[in-house]
Amino acid sequence: MTFHEKITTTVKKNNSLVCVGLDSDVDRLPQMFKDKENAQFAFNKAIIDATHDLVCAYKPNSAFYEAQGAAGITQLKLTCDYLTQTYPHIPIILDAKRADIGNTNNGYVSFAYDYLQVDAITIHPYLGKEAIMPFLERKDKGAIILCRTSNPGAGEFQDLPFVISSEERVERSHITKPLYKIVAQKVIAEWNTNHNCLMVIGATYPEEMKIIRKLAPTMNFLVPGVGAQGGDLEKTLEAGLTKEKDGLIINSSRGIIFASAGEDFAEKARQETQKLKTEINKYRV
Amino acid sequence: MTFHEKITTTVKKNNSLVCVGLDSDVDRLPQMFKDKENAQFAFNKAIIDATHDLVCAYKPNSAFYEAQGAAGITQLKLTCDYLTQTYPHIPIILDAKRADIGNTNNGYVSFAYDYLQVDAITIHPYLGKEAIMPFLERKDKGAIILCRTSNPGAGEFQDLPFVISSEERVERSHITKPLYKIVAQKVIAEWNTNHNCLMVIGATYPEEMKIIRKLAPTMNFLVPGVGAQGGDLEKTLEAGLTKEKDGLIINSSRGIIFASAGEDFAEKARQETQKLKTEINKYRV
Repeated sequence: MTFHEKITTTVKKNNSLVCVGLDSDVDRLPQMFKDKENAQFAFNKAIIDATHDLVCAYKPNSAFYEAQGAAGITQLKLTCDYLTQTYPHIPIILDAKRADIGNTNNGYVSFAYDYLQVDAITIHPYLGKEAIMPFLERKDKGAIILCRTSNPGAGEFQDLPFVISSEERVERSHITKPLYKIVAQKVIAEWNTNHNCLMVIGATYPEEMKIIRKLAPTMNFLVPGVGAQGGDLEKTLEAGLTKEKDGLIINSSRGIIFASAGEDFAEKARQETQKLKTEINKYRV
Repeated sequence: MTFHEKITTTVKKNNSLVCVGLDSDVDRLPQMFKDKENAQFAFNKAIIDATHDLVCAYKPNSAFYEAQGAAGITQLKLTCDYLTQTYPHIPIILDAKRADIGNTNNGYVSFAYDYLQVDAITIHPYLGKEAIMPFLERKDKGAIILCRTSNPGAGEFQDLPFVISSEERVERSHITKPLYKIVAQKVIAEWNTNHNCLMVIGATYPEEMKIIRKLAPTMNFLVPGVGAQGGDLEKTLEAGLTKEKDGLIINSSRGIIFASAGEDFAEKARQETQKLKTEINKYRV
């Protein structure tokens, strides 16, 4: 199944837009996992088994595995293998924020799609389309371009005003456009020829979400920033849901997986996932 | 030793600005390494032993190791450990092109500086300074920001014209500035408070190199793009060398490490490194 088929299937099957972020920082795992072999995988497996019927996707962030070196990459691989074998309909999004020159991106493509066998990966736009073609050419996989990131300082470059051409101007005062909007327009008009592009738009920026949704009425957006980062869920949903009341993959990581540091961590993770799902679905009727 | 001390020491000691890129793609290793255990490390060790007195740095690119999964990360670790133990004065630049939100970057910092113990890492600027503080705060390490990348399509975003403020205008016609220049100015004026920033500027763009060198007369630049990518070495050196005839870390990967696919690969790599060093040093007198 392609990424698109998987996400469409699972959003419907589980009636959910919740993506659980498997940011399984070893220093934050419950006490029972301390010094346990394959602790990150064991933790992830418990979280996955407790939440699989409530989510539309899982999103492991590569950084928390790389921090443990080769052993961490093994945990990430075990996690992806478990998901692929046990819940093959649930898409795996590798949050790795990669992008190099073309030749080198083949290595990242192998890591994500051959080794881990994930369904999508997050990508920096700075090197341009030509460089990231190895990702865009994989029609079966999702290429999730960073557009408006969720961090407080996102605007340093993403809000910089670009001069736009005279033909594009609606009136004399409209002579600039922020970088994030240029990224969005390029992704929509030029990068998405294989219909496999998505964009990252943080829940901390609902105004920007609204602007980008107008430009891309049906594209799926990956939305970090709810929960620990303080994004506004209501405003995000009002700004970002499509006419079909979907099109958002709303990620929560720490708020779900570290909801409890005790032995009830998986149960509490399920409760938080259910709670987020229910809150979101209030706006989908 | 800090990154800055290491690079300064080794540039002088070896009288060289050559950085050898350890882009050790397993599919391109000489026949003798096929199916050999720890092939990437064995290959790298031979390359390093044959070139260590001719270089100023080594630059393994993470993608070529990640492509092999956890086993590849082990090869990368073995390579970094060998360098740290055997040639402790030679800085290791991890070309990983990372950048996530702040909290997550701690994972990448652990991977690079605690696990691999490299001296510097390459970083995407798109998320802004606030996000990459975990890298910038490591005063002892080099934070190498992508400014002007070497790929043919680099200009898609990097050349987009930004509006600059009225105070900055020299005359009325000077109302825009390309993104790569804004990135450079921010790195120089705002990100480099710990004097640990460098920038990536491709040898394929000597005009841009010239502009950025004017802005940063003494900063070290990491320069990919000579050799296989076709960058112009002469123009790059004319545009980029500082008054002290240094300030450039000129990387060649495929042109050196894959100079021969036979048993003489290490000898040929040494010859190519020597050749590049000599060519560069013609412009340093």
